[in-house]
Amino acid sequence: MCRLLLYKGKQPIQLAHLLTKPAHSIINQSFDSRLRIDRRRPINGDGFGVGWYEPDADSETANTPCIFTSVTPAWNNNNLIRLAEKIKSPLVFAHVRASTAGTVTETNCHPFQYGRLMFMHNGGVAQFDRIKRRLIATLKEDIFLFVQGSTDSEWSFALFLNFLKNPDADTFDYVELKEAMLKTISQLNEWAEEAGITEPSLLNFAVTDGESVVCARYVSSDTLEAPSLYFSSGTKFESYEPGHYRMVKADRREDMVVVASEPLTFEKADWLTIPTNTILVITPKLSVLLSPIKDNNNMRRQENAN
Amino acid sequence: MCRLLLYKGKQPIQLAHLLTKPAHSIINQSFDSRLRIDRRRPINGDGFGVGWYEPDADSETANTPCIFTSVTPAWNNNNLIRLAEKIKSPLVFAHVRASTAGTVTETNCHPFQYGRLMFMHNGGVAQFDRIKRRLIATLKEDIFLFVQGSTDSEWSFALFLNFLKNPDADTFDYVELKEAMLKTISQLNEWAEEAGITEPSLLNFAVTDGESVVCARYVSSDTLEAPSLYFSSGTKFESYEPGHYRMVKADRREDMVVVASEPLTFEKADWLTIPTNTILVITPKLSVLLSPIKDNNNMRRQENAN
Amino acid sequence: MCRLLLYKGKQPIQLAHLLTKPAHSIINQSFDSRLRIDRRRPINGDGFGVGWYEPDADSETANTPCIFTSVTPAWNNNNLIRLAEKIKSPLVFAHVRASTAGTVTETNCHPFQYGRLMFMHNGGVAQFDRIKRRLIATLKEDIFLFVQGSTDSEWSFALFLNFLKNPDADTFDYVELKEAMLKTISQLNEWAEEAGITEPSLLNFAVTDGESVVCARYVSSDTLEAPSLYFSSGTKFESYEPGHYRMVKADRREDMVVVASEPLTFEKADWLTIPTNTILVITPKLSVLLSPIKDNNNMRRQENAN
Amino acid sequence: MCRLLLYKGKQPIQLAHLLTKPAHSIINQSFDSRLRIDRRRPINGDGFGVGWYEPDADSETANTPCIFTSVTPAWNNNNLIRLAEKIKSPLVFAHVRASTAGTVTETNCHPFQYGRLMFMHNGGVAQFDRIKRRLIATLKEDIFLFVQGSTDSEWSFALFLNFLKNPDADTFDYVELKEAMLKTISQLNEWAEEAGITEPSLLNFAVTDGESVVCARYVSSDTLEAPSLYFSSGTKFESYEPGHYRMVKADRREDMVVVASEPLTFEKADWLTIPTNTILVITPKLSVLLSPIKDNNNMRRQENAN
Repeated sequence: MCRLLLYKGKQPIQLAHLLTKPAHSIINQSFDSRLRIDRRRPINGDGFGVGWYEPDADSETANTPCIFTSVTPAWNNNNLIRLAEKIKSPLVFAHVRASTAGTVTETNCHPFQYGRLMFMHNGGVAQFDRIKRRLIATLKEDIFLFVQGSTDSEWSFALFLNFLKNPDADTFDYVELKEAMLKTISQLNEWAEEAGITEPSLLNFAVTDGESVVCARYVSSDTLEAPSLYFSSGTKFESYEPGHYRMVKADRREDMVVVASEPLTFEKADWLTIPTNTILVITPKLSVLLSPIKDNNNMRRQENAN
Repeated sequence: MCRLLLYKGKQPIQLAHLLTKPAHSIINQSFDSRLRIDRRRPINGDGFGVGWYEPDADSETANTPCIFTSVTPAWNNNNLIRLAEKIKSPLVFAHVRASTAGTVTETNCHPFQYGRLMFMHNGGVAQFDRIKRRLIATLKEDIFLFVQGSTDSEWSFALFLNFLKNPDADTFDYVELKEAMLKTISQLNEWAEEAGITEPSLLNFAVTDGESVVCARYVSSDTLEAPSLYFSSGTKFESYEPGHYRMVKADRREDMVVVASEPLTFEKADWLTIPTNTILVITPKLSVLLSPIKDNNNMRRQENAN
Repeated sequence: MCRLLLYKGKQPIQLAHLLTKPAHSIINQSFDSRLRIDRRRPINGDGFGVGWYEPDADSETANTPCIFTSVTPAWNNNNLIRLAEKIKSPLVFAHVRASTAGTVTETNCHPFQYGRLMFMHNGGVAQFDRIKRRLIATLKEDIFLFVQGSTDSEWSFALFLNFLKNPDADTFDYVELKEAMLKTISQLNEWAEEAGITEPSLLNFAVTDGESVVCARYVSSDTLEAPSLYFSSGTKFESYEPGHYRMVKADRREDMVVVASEPLTFEKADWLTIPTNTILVITPKLSVLLSPIKDNNNMRRQENAN
Repeated sequence: MCRLLLYKGKQPIQLAHLLTKPAHSIINQSFDSRLRIDRRRPINGDGFGVGWYEPDADSETANTPCIFTSVTPAWNNNNLIRLAEKIKSPLVFAHVRASTAGTVTETNCHPFQYGRLMFMHNGGVAQFDRIKRRLIATLKEDIFLFVQGSTDSEWSFALFLNFLKNPDADTFDYVELKEAMLKTISQLNEWAEEAGITEPSLLNFAVTDGESVVCARYVSSDTLEAPSLYFSSGTKFESYEPGHYRMVKADRREDMVVVASEPLTFEKADWLTIPTNTILVITPKLSVLLSPIKDNNNMRRQENAN
């Protein structure tokens, strides 16, 4: 089971505040993780990736994300530690990986990039091998050829891209991104059903075009919980003592939103749980929209809850 | 353009005699290579792999090959240098890579392994992207799922496996291996023709099951030469001064055969050129059989030569 | 805190039985380790090394050990997993590292080698920086120049070598190895005292020349325990179900001895604790000799115990 | 033999224009290098490093350099390629390494950093082992402990630091940096003489504090040439066709200076040779000062030339 984290803010944040300095950062989570479902492989030491957009993109650097990945564990990657001290960004995706499928190579590290888009995944498509060929057959040629690795996550991103009108566009409406993610989940479920796969898929996906963020917490089961996912919003993410951070909320303004597999701070009140089978949208203006994912699993889930 | 080397002998050879000690070994070839066709990327520094069979396989270690790969250049891989001093084997495949397609990851390093079989490739399938989907559609399910990387070489191996009656068998007839390789080349040509690809493919393939070796020097053109390929046979491969080796031929016996992209010794007489569009077989008893690859390209080639 | 394991047997053992197959092997220990003292960095994911001697060394391969190290975690190193299935040895040292000092580079990976000797260390020399210069000043020139890395462990090995009559010898008496290790510990203590260092050093050292093994469990404190260390001996180390091993003891013969930071099997009766501040010797004929390390710390320890 | 490149400009430059885009960039130099002295190891594939200062350092990121190093060859490092597209800096040091001494580890990659200072070296201290102990004995304690690797280059940097009044200072006068470099060269020569070393040392050193740059082209011989070193200055470094760059000089202004082992452009007129045994200073205001290194070698050199 992996860990993911994402940040979108009005102001760029130094990556170190998200990645390396918090005592419970995604990197420290990678070796002390108490909220996991899967306890068989207890460490997220199988690779790392972080992607970000430039705060002041100009014509030369364009607004494509920059991605840094590594097959060595995040916690002793000196390049990462040094870069995180220097780089600032208003939109960051980060991911630590515990391999469930696919060998540990840089091509299998999240986040994946296509043009302006970044995508990452925490979970797994159940028995992916049994639907892989169906998925491949569906893809447009250039999306098929874009895939470099061998994981269910990268192929799921390809499926997502396939649902976009123009994956090479310069800008996307967040409604289109949200619809494509819902279609991706729905399509994976449909193929699983056709293949007679009953094992549930864990589909915590996140995608961004540099402006909006769309993020799902989803399990294809009407009884199980999806991997944990939290969010926090406020005006400032500040350190009050080394390693300890809190989200400051002044004037009800929301200047930043953080979504993470596990809370980054020790202040419980800072974090809201995203319910299982929910899709979260962060709009370009930093509104947070939550809506349930309407499918058979979720309907039965609601009934079970009643 | 890559470099390959293979050894089959009655006696196991210490890997260092093939890989690290000869002044003109495959590793030294990787940074001083005078016989290349492709001068655009002059160094084979994009990964390395060596595979070998145990001299005395027992039930516990079985007779599957052991494979060591690396994405760092062979010439400064300390593990390789140390292992090569210790490991002995009667059948060795080695490969240094200069990436033409596919990113540099361990999953893209040759030789590739499937059960008892090892496979490596020096060259490239022209415009592979245009026939990739056709190839994938042809494959049996488990062979399709076996592929971990993204290169034309690994997919060519999958196509080869697809032509075998039972790729999971314990032993193979060398005739079957040879036929499967001829079919692989022929099939790739057929798809290229259908797709209107006129750029020639360079298909120097080698495969072994631990007993026989089959090796092609092939280009899908009636005028061009395939990447160079030489062989040498004799009773002993010995060093007469540090870094300098020669093939000793006593009593006309053939106790070992070496095939390589470039001669390993400085003795010209030690090496015979394998003609373009020729398939070479080393039988379990160390006979060397050369036969032309009969296809349209080769026929026109013969005519051109007359 | 690191983990170490060593095996010496009459028969060579396949490395996989020690390293990769046991559910509680040193590699699995590296991510689920319940017996640690130091819980600050809970994972041994900062590098790995294994060294072994050939079962049938001849003039060509000599009887120097072969060493394989890696800066990526042991548990996803495909080369290691493949080599462990093939390599057999009668004398194996293995080490997983959680860095306490020194950056994560291959030069800092244990075991360290000098000629026929291998050395590894589990623990740390307290405030090593304060005695490093003293140590360096003591060393003979070629031993000084031999050190490639920056860790207290490698410099401790250098100090050990400095106490040998001839570190380049072909064979060593185990008494000399034991004496050199006692002098190493004693010298480190003396320098610590001179420098006013009161923090205790954890000095679980192991050394071998390919014939004998000498191993210390030591802490320079009269009250604390050294990092755990166990040993087991018997006639066969066998698997009774996948991942589960036991030590079989037939006829009171001792055909193999295993020393490890933590038991490799789930059978408590298989393992004896090596007491703190004890030196263990495995003789070439597989006798196990335990003797207390006589110094001020240990004397006070004994008194405290009474 | 390594390759180095440095840039200082009024405006930040995108790293890609220096590192990855020019057809004859330091990375392309690393596999096609025609101006080398040492032809034994013809490729600079043994590691890579680039260091840079932020264009708008604030209190949070401070004005220490950020350093990215890699033990894999620069030309296939995807992280480097992606970062170079995004990062802009007014002061860049870059280095590709062909190991002559020291194993290939990240700790041995240039540039080395100490506080605000960066240092890199192209060449080698002749028979460094014979003066290493002398050098170490000279160093202040914290400078001695700062060294992490094993190369003559890093120890030379330590010697340089030892000649500074306060290596931890926030700013340095370029005269002090220049004097410290001259003393470093002179001291290495003195020790070589005492040790009876007659083989010449190649000491192309470069150092910066983020404001000034000091760079030597030096060989301790009165007849040999030091490794090549060129500089170019102008108002704009621009690409006129893909891979082809030129230095534009408008109005005699000097808005940028580039120093490199080999010219980055194909325009001969863009580049001036820095004479052997010369020290070059780039002042904070971008003046370029060249002065001969006055020592016995250089005096004899001048006489020889007359």
